[in-house]
Amino acid sequence: MCQLLGVNASRPSQILSLWSGFQQRGGRTDKHGDGWGLSFFDGKAVRVLKDENSCCDSSLALWLRHCTLRSTNIIGHIRYATEGKVGLANTHPFTRELWGRNWVFAHNGALVNFFPKFERFHPVGETDSERAFCWILDRLVERFPGVTPMTLPPWETLWSVLLDLTDELAQYGRLNCLFSYGDFMMVRCSTHLQYIVHKAPFPVVQLVEEKAEVDLGRVYEEDTEVVVIATQPLTDEAWERVKPGEMIVFSGGKVVYREQGVPGDTPGWDCPVGK
Amino acid sequence: MCQLLGVNASRPSQILSLWSGFQQRGGRTDKHGDGWGLSFFDGKAVRVLKDENSCCDSSLALWLRHCTLRSTNIIGHIRYATEGKVGLANTHPFTRELWGRNWVFAHNGALVNFFPKFERFHPVGETDSERAFCWILDRLVERFPGVTPMTLPPWETLWSVLLDLTDELAQYGRLNCLFSYGDFMMVRCSTHLQYIVHKAPFPVVQLVEEKAEVDLGRVYEEDTEVVVIATQPLTDEAWERVKPGEMIVFSGGKVVYREQGVPGDTPGWDCPVGK
Repeated sequence: MCQLLGVNASRPSQILSLWSGFQQRGGRTDKHGDGWGLSFFDGKAVRVLKDENSCCDSSLALWLRHCTLRSTNIIGHIRYATEGKVGLANTHPFTRELWGRNWVFAHNGALVNFFPKFERFHPVGETDSERAFCWILDRLVERFPGVTPMTLPPWETLWSVLLDLTDELAQYGRLNCLFSYGDFMMVRCSTHLQYIVHKAPFPVVQLVEEKAEVDLGRVYEEDTEVVVIATQPLTDEAWERVKPGEMIVFSGGKVVYREQGVPGDTPGWDCPVGK
Repeated sequence: MCQLLGVNASRPSQILSLWSGFQQRGGRTDKHGDGWGLSFFDGKAVRVLKDENSCCDSSLALWLRHCTLRSTNIIGHIRYATEGKVGLANTHPFTRELWGRNWVFAHNGALVNFFPKFERFHPVGETDSERAFCWILDRLVERFPGVTPMTLPPWETLWSVLLDLTDELAQYGRLNCLFSYGDFMMVRCSTHLQYIVHKAPFPVVQLVEEKAEVDLGRVYEEDTEVVVIATQPLTDEAWERVKPGEMIVFSGGKVVYREQGVPGDTPGWDCPVGK
C-alpha cells in the first residue's frame, strides 16, 4: 500500500515545497520506496512522471524538486508494494483515455480477491488498484452507452454513479483513492485521507517531513484557492479528515460535491495507516 | 510536422549520445521547437516524457541527457506545429491501452481532411496524428473482435492488417510513423525515414549535430543488436532509406517483417523534409 497526494487549485499552481516533503516518505522518512508517480493535468492533457525506483533517491523525483510545473489538478503516489512486484507497470497513477478525456487514478489500500472480468479496459500490470480502475471505467461505459466527447454525462450524475461504483469496490477492502479527468478532483476515503484548504491570507506553515517553514504567500498567487489532499498531513496545520465511506469532489480548490457512501473496509481486514 | 526517432534493441539500451544530437534539432539546429516527447517501454509498461516547450531548452530534456534510462523500444518525436496549437495535448508520442498493452504512436507528415468518426478511442488533442492513431486502434478493435490480453492475434496477421490500415491513411497525405506495443517497433514510411543497424564490432561514429565522435562500443553492451530509425541520419554513417510505402517491423534490432504498401502522399501535397 501506499500514500497519496492530491492538489486541486483555482489556477495552475506548483507544489515544490509539498513535493520535497512527500518525496522523503518514499523510502527515507517512511517505507514507501517501491516506486512513485506524479501527474499534472494541463487542460485535458496530462503529464505523468513515474519511476519504479524509490522516490527519495530517484533522479527524476529530484529534478521535480527544482522544476516549477504548474497545474490545477495534480495526483501523486508513493508505493509500498503489497500486491504486484516492484516495476513500472505497477506504479501509480494509472491513466486511460475515455470520452476524449484522460482519466488518472491512484489508490491506497488493498482490495482482497478482486478479479473482475474486463470488457474494454484491461490492466497492463498486476495490482488490485489498476484492476479497480479498469473496472470503474468499464462500468462507466456500460452505464453511459454512446457517450462521446461532445455528450459527456452531467457531472453530478457521473459523481453519483462513481459513488455507487466505489461503494461496490469498498466491499473488497480498503479504497482510499484519488481520480480526475482534468476538471475535477474526486476523492474517495475508506480510512485515511485528509485535506487542507489554503487561500489568502496564506499562512506560514511548518513542513512535517523537512522541519522547514514555508510561507505559502510566496508559493501561491494571491487569488488562488487550493486544496491539498494527503494520506497524512504534510504541514503542521489542522487538516480535515475525509470520513470513512465519504466521497468529495473538489473544483477550483473548493468542495463541489460531498456524499456519504458505505464505509467499506472488509471486516477482519486491517492494516496500519500508510501500509 | 516533425522529426522521428526510434530505437529497437535486443537488450535494454540507453540513447544518451543520440538524444543529445536529436535534441538540438528541437529548436536549435532545426526548427522543431514546438514540443517533444520520448517514450521508453519497460516490458508492457511505458514511460512517456513529454513537454510542450522546445526540446533544446526543456529542462526535462536536459535531464534526459544525463540519465541512463534503458529500453528495448524507444519512440521519440520533436514537433514543428502545423495542425493543432502548441500544447501538451498535441505533443507526440500518443499512447492508448488496447488488449492490456500500451500502444505508442508518433507521426511525421500531414493527413489532409482526415476527420473520421471515432468509436472507442477518441483524440484528446487536435492533431491529424492523434486522429490517425485513434482511427487505427478503432479499426483493430473492429477487425479483431473479442480479443483479450490472452488471445492476441498472431503477429504477422496484425502487421498485415496494419499495413492495410496505413495504406488507407496514406491516401490522405504523408504518413511517416513509428508505433509499438512493447514487443516490436513498427515503421511505416511515406517519404523520409532512414535506419541503421549497429552490432559488434561497434564503430566509432560522428554525430551529425554535435560534431562529436562517439564510440558505440562504450554505449552498447557487446552482444547488443540495435536499430536506430530517424527522419534524417543522426550519424555520419550510410543509413538505409525506408522506401515510400514500405512498412518494416523490427524486433531485437533485426527486421522481422517487411512489406511494400502503397507509396501514398496525396498528389499535389508536398512539403520539404522534416517540415
